[in-house]
Amino acid sequence: MTTLNRRWLLARRPRGRATVDDFRYDEQPFTPPDLADGQVLVRTRVFSCAPTMRNWMNEPGRSYRASIGLGEPIIGVAAGVVIASRNPRFPVGCGVSAVMRWEDYTVLSPDTTATPVLRVPDGMALEDALGVFGLNSLTAYFGMLRVGEPKPGETVVVSGAAGSTGSVAAQVARNIGCRVIGIAGGATKCARLVEDLGLDAAIDYKSEDVSARLKELCPDGVNVFYDNVGGDILHAVMDNVAVHARIAVCGQVAAYDSDQPAPGPRDMMKLVYWRVRIQGFVMGDYAHDAPAALEQLRTWRDEGRLAYRIDLREGFDQLPGAFLDLFTGGNDGALLVRG
Amino acid sequence: MTTLNRRWLLARRPRGRATVDDFRYDEQPFTPPDLADGQVLVRTRVFSCAPTMRNWMNEPGRSYRASIGLGEPIIGVAAGVVIASRNPRFPVGCGVSAVMRWEDYTVLSPDTTATPVLRVPDGMALEDALGVFGLNSLTAYFGMLRVGEPKPGETVVVSGAAGSTGSVAAQVARNIGCRVIGIAGGATKCARLVEDLGLDAAIDYKSEDVSARLKELCPDGVNVFYDNVGGDILHAVMDNVAVHARIAVCGQVAAYDSDQPAPGPRDMMKLVYWRVRIQGFVMGDYAHDAPAALEQLRTWRDEGRLAYRIDLREGFDQLPGAFLDLFTGGNDGALLVRG
Repeated sequence: MTTLNRRWLLARRPRGRATVDDFRYDEQPFTPPDLADGQVLVRTRVFSCAPTMRNWMNEPGRSYRASIGLGEPIIGVAAGVVIASRNPRFPVGCGVSAVMRWEDYTVLSPDTTATPVLRVPDGMALEDALGVFGLNSLTAYFGMLRVGEPKPGETVVVSGAAGSTGSVAAQVARNIGCRVIGIAGGATKCARLVEDLGLDAAIDYKSEDVSARLKELCPDGVNVFYDNVGGDILHAVMDNVAVHARIAVCGQVAAYDSDQPAPGPRDMMKLVYWRVRIQGFVMGDYAHDAPAALEQLRTWRDEGRLAYRIDLREGFDQLPGAFLDLFTGGNDGALLVRG
Repeated sequence: MTTLNRRWLLARRPRGRATVDDFRYDEQPFTPPDLADGQVLVRTRVFSCAPTMRNWMNEPGRSYRASIGLGEPIIGVAAGVVIASRNPRFPVGCGVSAVMRWEDYTVLSPDTTATPVLRVPDGMALEDALGVFGLNSLTAYFGMLRVGEPKPGETVVVSGAAGSTGSVAAQVARNIGCRVIGIAGGATKCARLVEDLGLDAAIDYKSEDVSARLKELCPDGVNVFYDNVGGDILHAVMDNVAVHARIAVCGQVAAYDSDQPAPGPRDMMKLVYWRVRIQGFVMGDYAHDAPAALEQLRTWRDEGRLAYRIDLREGFDQLPGAFLDLFTGGNDGALLVRG
């Protein structure tokens, strides 16, 4: 029997909202390659779908990272098991997480790739390595604490607060003693922000006037805004910032699935008079501090102070549909697909 | 003979570009008032015209500071001499600088006003107190060093670089060992940036493609941008930022004389991928460090490392016309009017 390498390829570059027709399924007979020194062969098992992958589907040059080549496999963070190794740090049988391709078998060069290849600690499920202890959580942790710099007692607002990054960002702020308001789409998600995550309030951007609600909830203004969404939600928060507010820009989901980028504040003088700081960031700049961050996240998790919701789909064939759900609110937690 | 108090009043709120018809001259017989404890009576002598005053002419609510009331005197930074005093820190004969009204006689309450009332050091000309050692220079000093945070060897760009704030900001960066590029309007101003201020290069936004020139001059990107202007110049710099760039937003002159505010960056994902920090500021937040800053500025001045150009007009009647020159590039240095 021939072993197959299943793949999902970028069939064409989406215009505006991505659709299933932008993806193409492909399978090829698989022959294990000869590994070079330092390389490992990984059988991918779990794929993480994140909104930012939409950016990598654009033509080269629009985003900082290399875009996916036409006809090439989709790339995204995934986890798998090492099935052949010429790297002593990654023996056969260990788990790894890294930016990988949407295919069954991937060769990685952990010592020389630009993006980190992480060994999954023994005993940790691959789903947790991609989920509650994954790159999204680290992004949330560093973005909130190092970029937002909230102080205990301050009012913190998080957009995309029901998502895999936002939900962790909100809990990090709550855990250090801030008052936290989450913005999410739909009554169910909003109820969960308050009941499951213990946030102080939630705003449903689909049915509420975000600016008016922020005015009610934050009469003294917003001290820190962790922004995953951008666009109108950024404008609504800018209407309600406190003096010396800090805005940590994690992503701009409002714009990913569009031909138009998400613009910044409408009136830059607001930044001057209110002395607002707006700062973009990526997790990689803080990677050297990841071990300490993971320890803190694990402590909070063990203490029951870090809830994390996974929307786990079964089957490699589910990948494009699962990814597209991110842009319609069709997911219910961090979206993972078991291949 | 009756003593007169001459005044310039806000006749109406400008729509878009301000004109002379927005100002109204007025004079009233002046009787020295009874001063309360702590108050001083000042004979104003020199008025500083700054673009930001245009914002105070708008309707209340659009800017952070109180707007000028219709029919009330224009306000702006000015300097004068104390002619009656019930405040021991400000004896008769000493010079003061503060936000004052465009009129001959002003009562100040130095201990209780929100904006600082500064005593002019003995022996310092009022023109220097408003000019090279004035609030604009302190704004430039703190904005560049505390908000821009340039490191020696980095590439720094300053817009409005021929102006009273920009020219100091550019020299501060040059003095600490940065490579500095100034943006200004017109060949004369640009030549002066290089020849008189010793900047490394200048860009004439009136005749050159700012983005293309920045690309040539900063192939490794702009590390720090000190922005007085905003609008298209901000966009041009955003096209050319280096990773981890810092943008210190001092003002947005491009928008002051308009009904439209100056918007922020066109694509907030650029902030994320390039990890850019954009921060607005006002000088008041650093006022407690002003003495040390002034000492540094005086040292540089004495060493010949802080050039400062004053465009001095004579006559109280010149005030509105001088102010309006700021928006047409009709001034040649920091604009002061001797009343």
